[in-house]
Amino acid sequence: MYPELLNHIIRYVQLTADEEQLLCEKLEYIKVKKKEFLLEPGKLCQGSYFVVKGLVRQFFLDDKLNEKIIQFGLENWWIADQDSLLNHQPSGFYIQAIEYSELLLLTERNRILLFEQIPRLECYFRLMIQIAFVASQRRLCYIFTQNDEERYRHFSARFPGFMQRVPQYMLASYLGFTPQFLSRLRAKKT
Amino acid sequence: MYPELLNHIIRYVQLTADEEQLLCEKLEYIKVKKKEFLLEPGKLCQGSYFVVKGLVRQFFLDDKLNEKIIQFGLENWWIADQDSLLNHQPSGFYIQAIEYSELLLLTERNRILLFEQIPRLECYFRLMIQIAFVASQRRLCYIFTQNDEERYRHFSARFPGFMQRVPQYMLASYLGFTPQFLSRLRAKKT
Repeated sequence: MYPELLNHIIRYVQLTADEEQLLCEKLEYIKVKKKEFLLEPGKLCQGSYFVVKGLVRQFFLDDKLNEKIIQFGLENWWIADQDSLLNHQPSGFYIQAIEYSELLLLTERNRILLFEQIPRLECYFRLMIQIAFVASQRRLCYIFTQNDEERYRHFSARFPGFMQRVPQYMLASYLGFTPQFLSRLRAKKT
Repeated sequence: MYPELLNHIIRYVQLTADEEQLLCEKLEYIKVKKKEFLLEPGKLCQGSYFVVKGLVRQFFLDDKLNEKIIQFGLENWWIADQDSLLNHQPSGFYIQAIEYSELLLLTERNRILLFEQIPRLECYFRLMIQIAFVASQRRLCYIFTQNDEERYRHFSARFPGFMQRVPQYMLASYLGFTPQFLSRLRAKKT
């Protein structure tokens, strides 16, 4: 049994003990070293990863081979290439551990199977993707309205603990500016 | 009965005749004139709107009162402020008809009620939000990798019919550049 995940699910939907058992039997516990990959471009995304411990990132390389971070995955968060899962097509993304991480993999095949057996699980995942969609829309709004410095201040105020764990260049990539700009900002602050 | 919506649902999940009936009884048919609002900032989003005919847009005003378009809603597409629905908080957005439009409103209360009665409907909406999330992530990737001109060319190639229906200044707002830039681009093309 995986208490971290079950405690997370219970915030949104109620499962019976049998359903919890059934779900846990379908999960695979995965440990990855820092910098290890869970997904690489050209491969099908295997399923959805729940972060039990650690921190991962989803990114792609642009034409000039710059890393562009599209999403982070922290404890109690699901991460997956939804495009690859939904359209059964090879991914264009990397998913990589930033720290040593422990995750639960729910393959897409098992997820769909479980939806038939545990309808409330579909409700849980509907909510998870709705939350992710809202976060993605908010990010678009910030890109539209905030300049680089505002985006940085806003992000540090909302996720102070997170800021300590992520290397500067990754944070710059996620917020869409150069590491040099971030260094100048941090120097200004201190 | 609303054939446009039922034909859309059938692409993803199978409902029984009774379930279709039940769903249709919960919908409200809405007709809006060009420029009429379905949602305004400070109000709760009532629910999800399925576009039967016409075209709507979701936008907000930035500090300088510039309109920033976050999403369009065309025929066979759902539009809603997911943030307002999910977090039961007043919206920061407008949803407005660009043309005379006909829509089906499914209030959030009815949607949640129906999920209990028609579990497959939850599957349908889980897929709808998953598709919307993928579109939103792709848009982020384009913002990260394409310059203004590339973004315009990419968008016109993918949605040629749509380009004819949307006023230039809205297209510019959606793609994140000035109407002047768009005029220059179009002049260059012809």
